[in-house]
Amino acid sequence: MSALDVLGLTAGTLTTISFMPQMLRILKRRSADDLSYGALAFFIIGISLWVWYGIALHSMPILLTNAVTLALNFSILVLKITHDRRRVSE
Amino acid sequence: MSALDVLGLTAGTLTTISFMPQMLRILKRRSADDLSYGALAFFIIGISLWVWYGIALHSMPILLTNAVTLALNFSILVLKITHDRRRVSE
Repeated sequence: MSALDVLGLTAGTLTTISFMPQMLRILKRRSADDLSYGALAFFIIGISLWVWYGIALHSMPILLTNAVTLALNFSILVLKITHDRRRVSE
Repeated sequence: MSALDVLGLTAGTLTTISFMPQMLRILKRRSADDLSYGALAFFIIGISLWVWYGIALHSMPILLTNAVTLALNFSILVLKITHDRRRVSE
């Protein structure tokens, strides 16, 4: 692994870790009311394109860390849909 | 500009736009109580390293879009510090 890979992986690990508090907050409060579908949609589409960019550029750090961020934010979206639906049915 | 650059710039524009609602929310509510300094710190350091990675990799999209995201989140941090200080002095 090159020094450049280590730099990219460190960058990606830090930006990915910074989403964990948001995720834990949703799990704890069982609510994601304060998140907008618009912002989440923009972000998920953007991160998907970053994964594609990482593949095209043969950059392992961009591919790997954005794939993890994508999975995290997709989980946040699913949690939000689940919680919003539960509230409507109650 | 290559097709790869367009892909990267589109990805970066989408992920950067998704921070705007957060910024507007802080400006509107004049409060950033619900944001943690920890998450912001992780994110700002991570994005700084992405800028460095973009320079080292000679990737204009990574450099440019992360520089904008860094400026946005640095503004969010300054707004949070300002609002938190004002509350203490009141």
